[in-house]
Amino acid sequence: MSSDVCCFAEARRVAIFGGTHGNEMSGIMLVSMWTKNDSEIRRSRVHTKPFMCNPRAVEKCARYIDTDLNRAFTAENLSTPGGDELPYEVRRAKEINQIFGPKGSPDAYDVIFDLHNTTSNMGSTFILESSTDHFNLQMVHYIKKSMAPESCMVLLNEHPQLKYATTRSVAKHAVGLEVGPQPQGVLRSNIFESMRMIVKHALDFIEMFNSGVEFPACRVQVFRVHERVDYPRDTNGNIGAMVHPHLQDCDWEPLNPGDPMFQTFDGRTIVYEGAGSVYPTFINEAAYYEKHQAFVTTFRETLAVNSIRKNTK
Amino acid sequence: MSSDVCCFAEARRVAIFGGTHGNEMSGIMLVSMWTKNDSEIRRSRVHTKPFMCNPRAVEKCARYIDTDLNRAFTAENLSTPGGDELPYEVRRAKEINQIFGPKGSPDAYDVIFDLHNTTSNMGSTFILESSTDHFNLQMVHYIKKSMAPESCMVLLNEHPQLKYATTRSVAKHAVGLEVGPQPQGVLRSNIFESMRMIVKHALDFIEMFNSGVEFPACRVQVFRVHERVDYPRDTNGNIGAMVHPHLQDCDWEPLNPGDPMFQTFDGRTIVYEGAGSVYPTFINEAAYYEKHQAFVTTFRETLAVNSIRKNTK
Repeated sequence: MSSDVCCFAEARRVAIFGGTHGNEMSGIMLVSMWTKNDSEIRRSRVHTKPFMCNPRAVEKCARYIDTDLNRAFTAENLSTPGGDELPYEVRRAKEINQIFGPKGSPDAYDVIFDLHNTTSNMGSTFILESSTDHFNLQMVHYIKKSMAPESCMVLLNEHPQLKYATTRSVAKHAVGLEVGPQPQGVLRSNIFESMRMIVKHALDFIEMFNSGVEFPACRVQVFRVHERVDYPRDTNGNIGAMVHPHLQDCDWEPLNPGDPMFQTFDGRTIVYEGAGSVYPTFINEAAYYEKHQAFVTTFRETLAVNSIRKNTK
Repeated sequence: MSSDVCCFAEARRVAIFGGTHGNEMSGIMLVSMWTKNDSEIRRSRVHTKPFMCNPRAVEKCARYIDTDLNRAFTAENLSTPGGDELPYEVRRAKEINQIFGPKGSPDAYDVIFDLHNTTSNMGSTFILESSTDHFNLQMVHYIKKSMAPESCMVLLNEHPQLKYATTRSVAKHAVGLEVGPQPQGVLRSNIFESMRMIVKHALDFIEMFNSGVEFPACRVQVFRVHERVDYPRDTNGNIGAMVHPHLQDCDWEPLNPGDPMFQTFDGRTIVYEGAGSVYPTFINEAAYYEKHQAFVTTFRETLAVNSIRKNTK
């Protein structure tokens, strides 16, 4: 049915972002490596630009200097006229928007891959922001097939309240990539090589797409963000419990009503009391204590993805 | 043979240090918990003081503010007359030395336990600074027996160049405790509970010792610090290789000449070329990139420990 074919312009301008968070080492090392020698990411029909997003945070091996860059790409920040008095990451967001955007404009980059690590046991995970971006969904489908039997999950963050203003959001097609578990400030070879392989497959896909290959309709399993769950806290905001050992490291496994969720310091178990089964992820991510999130719950669903090809003119 | 019995004064004043590094969460949470309610660490013959060493770093969830507190207890720092212009941790070292020392004096605390986490797969590890402190060695022997079948290793850092001026070094008996693997900024319940249990056994030992129990001669297996091994680096100081997947997470397992040690970014393997087998540990610890240490090698040996009892008058 040709009515189901989505046509997109060629994706000529692609950026690979590392160091959006300055202590997530895989993307930092890959971008640094590819900046010196881009032979691995060169394709004949794609211009690929590796880019270090938060060099000052990378220098300090900290997530950020003043504020989280990956929450800074709001319309308000990007349009504010301010200068040196702005938080460092707001200034940096404006610069990145100038180079790779402007966000939402025809001049914006076609695709941005933003490379992240997590301390959670999430494996390799794409974070997508739209269930109707068939280009991204086809790309993810292609990569999942290419990576098999290694698995690659898709976290779909379309939630009106929980969606945030990401660095990659300046592109027409925004792709977040989380690979874990890896502690902040540590470079593990297995995590590094997984991320490297995923980027390779992604660029291969774009090259094929640009060369005119049509990708047939398919289905992609995604985990849709549902709810943020915080640690129990006292009146001063200090946490009063830990992720329960039965939940720790069990990202993507079903959490059912009555299942252990937290363990208090005096040994009591707090169970999950939702209405039905959910799939938790980002369980016990270091950076999310300050964001009041012990994990996020998701629902599993399967998206029907249209076939895609490039515009013929 | 009574000539082999070492006599020590009762260990009445004991401190438990957390937050020497502000992003090592188990000790921070335990000290914070015990400061509010000390019933768990109370013993009739021991006065136990929980203490947060670097509250500003804890607040920021960073290892340190200006300089590593756990390297700051040098004679020079502790005797410097300076004030507010000194690095925060040097000022803090002087304060801690006033409260729990002075280091090397009869007024110093009897025992300090300093609670640390590591991103390395070291399990529970004591760090001792002397092979002739029979009090500490007897305590470790008691705890190892009490923890079995869970293992508890002993890293002996008596190396003249690699020994460093630790926070705990102000006490007569200095005991470092590392438990891992745990990412910086993360609290894992399994690591928390292991640390808590070790402190419990340690205080039980001191209580028994103070009550007059004699502990017979024994043997303790330790791993003696031999050499620091850095990542391969380029002329700018950037790392040029990662810990090899065959070495990653293999703390305490023998590394033999010819065994893989590092993997370069272009896939080459760098092997260990030492003269004989060593036991690496602190493999890929996040905080040691800046200290130019990918791991430390050790030799395994068994120490003969004298029997101990308290002074009878």
